[in-house]
Amino acid sequence: MLALGVACGAAPAALSAPPLVTPASVLAAAPDADWTTIDPHDLLVIDLAGGGRVVILLADSFAPVHVGNIRKLAAAHWYDGLAIERVQDNYVVQWGDPDGKKALPAGLTNPAPAEYDRPAEGLPFPLLPYPDPYAKAVGVSGGLPVGEDGGRAWLTHCYGMVGVGRDLNPDTGTGAELYAVIGTPPRALDRNIAVVGRVLRGMELLAALPRGTADLGFYAKPEQRTEIIRIRIATDLPAADQPHMQVLRETSASFRAWIQAKANRQDTFFVRPAGALDVCNAMPPVRGAGRVGM
Amino acid sequence: MLALGVACGAAPAALSAPPLVTPASVLAAAPDADWTTIDPHDLLVIDLAGGGRVVILLADSFAPVHVGNIRKLAAAHWYDGLAIERVQDNYVVQWGDPDGKKALPAGLTNPAPAEYDRPAEGLPFPLLPYPDPYAKAVGVSGGLPVGEDGGRAWLTHCYGMVGVGRDLNPDTGTGAELYAVIGTPPRALDRNIAVVGRVLRGMELLAALPRGTADLGFYAKPEQRTEIIRIRIATDLPAADQPHMQVLRETSASFRAWIQAKANRQDTFFVRPAGALDVCNAMPPVRGAGRVGM
Repeated sequence: MLALGVACGAAPAALSAPPLVTPASVLAAAPDADWTTIDPHDLLVIDLAGGGRVVILLADSFAPVHVGNIRKLAAAHWYDGLAIERVQDNYVVQWGDPDGKKALPAGLTNPAPAEYDRPAEGLPFPLLPYPDPYAKAVGVSGGLPVGEDGGRAWLTHCYGMVGVGRDLNPDTGTGAELYAVIGTPPRALDRNIAVVGRVLRGMELLAALPRGTADLGFYAKPEQRTEIIRIRIATDLPAADQPHMQVLRETSASFRAWIQAKANRQDTFFVRPAGALDVCNAMPPVRGAGRVGM
Repeated sequence: MLALGVACGAAPAALSAPPLVTPASVLAAAPDADWTTIDPHDLLVIDLAGGGRVVILLADSFAPVHVGNIRKLAAAHWYDGLAIERVQDNYVVQWGDPDGKKALPAGLTNPAPAEYDRPAEGLPFPLLPYPDPYAKAVGVSGGLPVGEDGGRAWLTHCYGMVGVGRDLNPDTGTGAELYAVIGTPPRALDRNIAVVGRVLRGMELLAALPRGTADLGFYAKPEQRTEIIRIRIATDLPAADQPHMQVLRETSASFRAWIQAKANRQDTFFVRPAGALDVCNAMPPVRGAGRVGM
């Protein structure tokens, strides 16, 4: 498409103009130093029946007790053999124990505290200079989208964000039931649920699952579920099977340039740059090596 | 879940408290007079191989020339036998002529004008009293999500909104290639493309299609595409096969109450209502009769 654009406006002067700064060109030029390697202890790997893999960045700094529970459940191999049981269009994919009968391993914090937000202090996240309907300010911290208000900060419900399923207040869930957002950011859930991470790879597998036809998108028949072969922290997998992921560091010049390029698109396609960017379109890019996907 | 909540807090006083006002309770109580029947001439019906049906509300008041082209293409049965050719995760599903070789019928406006926005005058849409990153104001008009700034109004790219695929400026597309949003609202596309409608039914079919693995999410192999059996304006279908749709009128008391209930969730699940609502979560509910889906 860019080639076509050049062909259409191929005056000699245009050829000597500076190249367009686009989100893609910023990423291509980002030096290795602007990418941060994610600690593999923070990567949760889900292997699905059929060979698909989902890789999730865990958010210890926002929901440490829930994430601690998830680590214990993974270490105990508790999730293995369970299933994706719910796919509600334009909302969430949920996985866990469909029958709610599997005994939890020892050592979980149950009930977990309501880790719905945390002090904003200590999170010098770059703020996006654009308004948000739900927060006083929004930004990015540790590769994750964040809202802030009144000295408190929380992870925002964007596409691909992972939360802990729970029943009614004051139950807060344990981490045994998890969901990922697959549609319009359901921001009304912000600060009402423990958000524990971000899917870095494999969203195209979760989001493409057939929608469930029972209430809330649960599958009507057990055979419609997708089996979970295993869920592990990356370091508990054989070395050759471990994913290695990097995220564009939000304090880097490349990230700032990427945000600028996304908010003010110069790509030939765009006739009117938005001049703004919302938090769910500002989630830092990631790149991977090793077995990061199917 | 509500039953559980009542059981937990079942003091006699609680039983006599006024019932919670929730989005669901508002819809259940909405009188028929608050629902507007959509003119069936404005419904575009896509029947897919396998029996799935997608119903789209066309937006004549925003992109009349493009919508006129789409009506002519449907009347000429031009789309029949074509395919869904592209599914890019967290972005769009696109359908049309994968090979770009099928001759267009006579009578199209080609190129179409750049119907990217229109005068805001004459669109007294209820404004949402919450900030938006991309528009001076946002609201709803004719069942559709709208942004406004400087006296101009445009349809916003929300989940399920339908636009006209195009190449580079100044090409504006004809309506032969259409897409629907299946992820995070790509609001940077607002005012850069002709938005022609909203999927009212069948999003769960489009959004669950396997993602394409070639560039931009196009399918690498023709056999991965989903065939389009036919696309028709509803009134061109046999009477027994026609969908009938209604939308909650945005000027009704029920719509205002629904927005209030969505922005300030009283449902037992919520511990902290958001106190806000974004335009993509404010799209008016629809209901249907006749063959509206699978």
